[in-house]
Amino acid sequence: MSSTTGILFKVTTFGESHGKSIGAVIDGCPPRIRLNESDIQIQLDRRRPGQSDLTTGRNEKDLVRILSGVENGQTLGTPIALLIDNRDHRPVDYGNTLDIPRPSHADYTYRMKYGINAASGGGRASARETAARVAAGAIAEKFLFETHGIRIVAWVSAAGSATAPEMGHDVSRRQVEKTSTRCPDPETARQIKKQIMRAREDSDSIGGIITCICKNMPAGLGEPVFDKTEARLAQAMLSIPASKGFEIGSGFAGAAMQGSTHNDLFIKRDDHLGTRTNFSGGIQGGITNGEPILFKVAFKPPATIGKAQNTVDYDGNDAILNAKGRHDPCVVPRAVPIVEAMTALVLADLALCQIVKN
Amino acid sequence: MSSTTGILFKVTTFGESHGKSIGAVIDGCPPRIRLNESDIQIQLDRRRPGQSDLTTGRNEKDLVRILSGVENGQTLGTPIALLIDNRDHRPVDYGNTLDIPRPSHADYTYRMKYGINAASGGGRASARETAARVAAGAIAEKFLFETHGIRIVAWVSAAGSATAPEMGHDVSRRQVEKTSTRCPDPETARQIKKQIMRAREDSDSIGGIITCICKNMPAGLGEPVFDKTEARLAQAMLSIPASKGFEIGSGFAGAAMQGSTHNDLFIKRDDHLGTRTNFSGGIQGGITNGEPILFKVAFKPPATIGKAQNTVDYDGNDAILNAKGRHDPCVVPRAVPIVEAMTALVLADLALCQIVKN
Amino acid sequence: MSSTTGILFKVTTFGESHGKSIGAVIDGCPPRIRLNESDIQIQLDRRRPGQSDLTTGRNEKDLVRILSGVENGQTLGTPIALLIDNRDHRPVDYGNTLDIPRPSHADYTYRMKYGINAASGGGRASARETAARVAAGAIAEKFLFETHGIRIVAWVSAAGSATAPEMGHDVSRRQVEKTSTRCPDPETARQIKKQIMRAREDSDSIGGIITCICKNMPAGLGEPVFDKTEARLAQAMLSIPASKGFEIGSGFAGAAMQGSTHNDLFIKRDDHLGTRTNFSGGIQGGITNGEPILFKVAFKPPATIGKAQNTVDYDGNDAILNAKGRHDPCVVPRAVPIVEAMTALVLADLALCQIVKN
Amino acid sequence: MSSTTGILFKVTTFGESHGKSIGAVIDGCPPRIRLNESDIQIQLDRRRPGQSDLTTGRNEKDLVRILSGVENGQTLGTPIALLIDNRDHRPVDYGNTLDIPRPSHADYTYRMKYGINAASGGGRASARETAARVAAGAIAEKFLFETHGIRIVAWVSAAGSATAPEMGHDVSRRQVEKTSTRCPDPETARQIKKQIMRAREDSDSIGGIITCICKNMPAGLGEPVFDKTEARLAQAMLSIPASKGFEIGSGFAGAAMQGSTHNDLFIKRDDHLGTRTNFSGGIQGGITNGEPILFKVAFKPPATIGKAQNTVDYDGNDAILNAKGRHDPCVVPRAVPIVEAMTALVLADLALCQIVKN
Repeated sequence: MSSTTGILFKVTTFGESHGKSIGAVIDGCPPRIRLNESDIQIQLDRRRPGQSDLTTGRNEKDLVRILSGVENGQTLGTPIALLIDNRDHRPVDYGNTLDIPRPSHADYTYRMKYGINAASGGGRASARETAARVAAGAIAEKFLFETHGIRIVAWVSAAGSATAPEMGHDVSRRQVEKTSTRCPDPETARQIKKQIMRAREDSDSIGGIITCICKNMPAGLGEPVFDKTEARLAQAMLSIPASKGFEIGSGFAGAAMQGSTHNDLFIKRDDHLGTRTNFSGGIQGGITNGEPILFKVAFKPPATIGKAQNTVDYDGNDAILNAKGRHDPCVVPRAVPIVEAMTALVLADLALCQIVKN
Repeated sequence: MSSTTGILFKVTTFGESHGKSIGAVIDGCPPRIRLNESDIQIQLDRRRPGQSDLTTGRNEKDLVRILSGVENGQTLGTPIALLIDNRDHRPVDYGNTLDIPRPSHADYTYRMKYGINAASGGGRASARETAARVAAGAIAEKFLFETHGIRIVAWVSAAGSATAPEMGHDVSRRQVEKTSTRCPDPETARQIKKQIMRAREDSDSIGGIITCICKNMPAGLGEPVFDKTEARLAQAMLSIPASKGFEIGSGFAGAAMQGSTHNDLFIKRDDHLGTRTNFSGGIQGGITNGEPILFKVAFKPPATIGKAQNTVDYDGNDAILNAKGRHDPCVVPRAVPIVEAMTALVLADLALCQIVKN
Repeated sequence: MSSTTGILFKVTTFGESHGKSIGAVIDGCPPRIRLNESDIQIQLDRRRPGQSDLTTGRNEKDLVRILSGVENGQTLGTPIALLIDNRDHRPVDYGNTLDIPRPSHADYTYRMKYGINAASGGGRASARETAARVAAGAIAEKFLFETHGIRIVAWVSAAGSATAPEMGHDVSRRQVEKTSTRCPDPETARQIKKQIMRAREDSDSIGGIITCICKNMPAGLGEPVFDKTEARLAQAMLSIPASKGFEIGSGFAGAAMQGSTHNDLFIKRDDHLGTRTNFSGGIQGGITNGEPILFKVAFKPPATIGKAQNTVDYDGNDAILNAKGRHDPCVVPRAVPIVEAMTALVLADLALCQIVKN
Repeated sequence: MSSTTGILFKVTTFGESHGKSIGAVIDGCPPRIRLNESDIQIQLDRRRPGQSDLTTGRNEKDLVRILSGVENGQTLGTPIALLIDNRDHRPVDYGNTLDIPRPSHADYTYRMKYGINAASGGGRASARETAARVAAGAIAEKFLFETHGIRIVAWVSAAGSATAPEMGHDVSRRQVEKTSTRCPDPETARQIKKQIMRAREDSDSIGGIITCICKNMPAGLGEPVFDKTEARLAQAMLSIPASKGFEIGSGFAGAAMQGSTHNDLFIKRDDHLGTRTNFSGGIQGGITNGEPILFKVAFKPPATIGKAQNTVDYDGNDAILNAKGRHDPCVVPRAVPIVEAMTALVLADLALCQIVKN
């Protein structure tokens, strides 16, 4: 298991969804960055289920505590340990899931790899683990903003069959928060809400797409050839539970374009060069060029649904799986701060490397 | 610059496109794997330009030499150094590219980051570097096949506006090699060839999509939470020059599906479990489940085109860029062995980790 | 700051000596190893000050809690988080040490590097941080014993001017615990105790040497050329506060020997080869040969002493430093479990690598 | 096998002693450092056997070629590949060593770990591999000197029973090169020479000690808690073939000192603080304090001797080993540039980290 990521800005997460606590240790955050618990809590609150009319009603209130690495509102340069208690960590009623691997869940693969059950270590495959990432990412965001002025904004650009128009470079986090769908286009937001409601009624689930933009980027971030900025972002995004795809700039659509249209011609911009278009997504040759980074992440529909499923148990016998309890029919709105957090972790790590090289 | 990748199966590549040599060092390949230079040469030959009617005519014959780590046709467990000489490494005539950063190339970002020119270190951003990856990947493929029977096959599934139908799990490398387009669907292959020819006439370029499948996968590969198999593959693919997107299993299309359709129901398969569908792409919770791994990679149209481009020079003055010489209007067919190589490097590294954990 | 160590068996420690808590996260411990809190507590108790007549009277009772990674007395393969609260973490009375860097302490260097004061982040340089290492090491020891039968025993072999005779390969942890000095030779133990008492009366301090042996070693551990077993042990030992030297097998004395005497001639031992002598310290070419690993670590006298010291303040003005409170005149007995813990961490990491390669 | 070291300034070495070539790739050297082949050749020549009246007569002339990463006498920021051909790589006459593991060599452990013979991969355990380190270290030295003015000087301070007096901080590389023993104290040099001559006559070998000093050190290098400067140096030194011990500053002698004597009292030195004594060896809390770094490395007598040895073969049968050919009775003089190289690699890596943190 590799729960540590980053070369200089290193993050380690821990905790099963049904254990005592989850948390993270951030090792490598530079000293003298202003930081307090509310900087972190604000992002954690955005990830919390039960926060809106759209999500599951479980009362999963996450309070973060900083255990080390910060004093008098400033980082010390030492490891920052964050702890979030699982308020209600009695063993969950999993129905018959201990005998039947849940389809498209990690139950089967965790048993094959670790020889353990879903209710325990499989809990690392739960979305709960991402709370620790969001907490760590909030620190990376603080560092990036204080030292470089970098701003990261993600939003829901599609869910189910609804897709928002391209939103340009000016979406703000405030706009994103206006609706519970986290889609800043009002008409699409309405459609997405309707589709989530319908999926809930059907005991089914829907997927979606998150778009993310990083503004005020310095040129020069990224470590070719293997740690190109888009390569590191791709790994970070595909490590988020339920993500299925990543594209930078023009992405898959770019594959159908012609070079003469796709090339981002240079223009003079104050004291440096910019580009007329941004099909590159702010990165050329794996290195940021100073234009906004722009990428998308696809998420599958949640695997946990209320509908009965005809599958087999661990012994291969036919079985019908009936999941109990309420389930979240669409996780994309809640995944928005997770995408932002993982983006921040990648950029913080590359930013420290970048300072090195110049 | 980070030209090293892998935790246990470590690969380091070196060499500029216009320097004396390029090469790779593979550190961590287990001992007693059968290996000789022809195992590597065969994949290198597939990457070579000038190999078909479709590509540029430059005679870039790559001969690989094994300098260490192999004796009597077997690996020793020690670092394997591979060397490929650049046959014709006189300074290239770049026209006016030393003054004008080529749009959507790495010229500008390399100068911003390293303070050096495209004609030298920028050569690391050249596709030439990927020859070293292909050579290293051939060794990883050998290891995966000899120890696990794993087979990796990639092919061109789209280029320009032509898209092949889904090909299932049974495409073989031999089928792929039947046409110069490396698209195993004959009708699509014809269309792609036509589009490449037209792009060449227009002094323009087109992009495309490569699909890759990995067969005979053992269950249990992948190191959650950050080194999930799909996360590592995503990083590997987005580190290939000109790649713009990655999707595993259902990918972006999966975002528009419902959970009840998307979930891969389990079935009994001999002595283990399989799944009825494979929207997961062979991976659940970041760990292989024994089904084939299935993913796609999007490539943009090559940035080097013959058409004149209205851009600016490094000082911001208006300039017209006229690239000289012949250019490859579509790199996707040549990128097929690169995708296979990067896939092999990721799986070899995870396979060594996997052995550890059980 | 690099508070993470290990490639596959990764350990991250956190916590300042005067913050809320310290702890560690162990990422990579294989699943299904029996483990409970008392396995860890027993080693922590050995590290605790105030445990004997020889050490400082501060009541620093360390209770460890396992927050994740263990269920029903077994490891899950997921990250194991350990938390130890600092019982009494009110700001300490440092006397004038905020203005005057304590000689041979980390006050000055932490201020130079991080721009912070000794009372906070400098607390990472405190011996307190080693409690987290001891806790993590106890888990590594459990893994090594359960999977390989490996036993690690360290003891005080010298302190001040007293030096114990060579003790051979049969020292047990029980023997070591017989005296508060942790020197298993009774006569030397008496002398050491006397010297510690005298140092305390003089408000001074003394150093010492710890010898460590690892028994039931499998052959084949160690990853040349840079991660040789002795190289990794050397890094681990020199990372312990106050350590000044490391030697494996014959060590510095070996430098004065002749090859014909120093060479460890092979002998037949059951179904494998052993060596007649063990000047190699159980390692040849960086790889364990199956003989016991044998090494020594030198520790300087503690820098915190009661005697007044003529030094300068941060501005370079002459100053007299008077440390307040009671100080430990000799830390070597307490360092014994730290040496064992760091040894276990190195061997656990190399053992996981070793399984890979065969 | 781990033939890669360093976090930001990464070095990978390759090549068996009897293969075609050995070499190194340096990934992470900053751009625009002046560098040409003679900077490297000069250190390689110092490592070469047959360079003086004291060493074996094999004509092992090492010519280094830079294959990448350097253009017009400047580094590009891209990986620097170095190649050294083995001039005379016909299979060596090992006498009966293929059946009999050479005592205190790596023959037995390489066979146990990799299942291969000494004549091939075991060649990685040969001193020949260190030529690649010396070449890489020369680049690190260039970087350290050009960017920080750091000077590294190592010398032979003991061999056999002869020990030089403490030499202070002012030994220069020129002084070291005055005699073939590389001991800058003329009287000790004479004794060492005599002892080496006698060992040769006796077909035996002697060990020795190398002292190393690093001058013009900036304060702030080192990454506690696990990558303390002395910890990284200790790993680097114990990774050199035949090394048995490392001590920083007061080292093992410090274990017998009292705190009141051992503490390095601060003094004002121009615009910063220095210390009156340097028992710390230039490092406090794992971080450089600006005083010279001072450490020693112990080397055992070479295991290859002409004398017959009563040992056993791989099957455990009694056997007499008679090594053929001429052997080097003392490698310490030749190890001087290796110690310097490994020191430079550690400091270069920490220097890049250091720039990050401030």
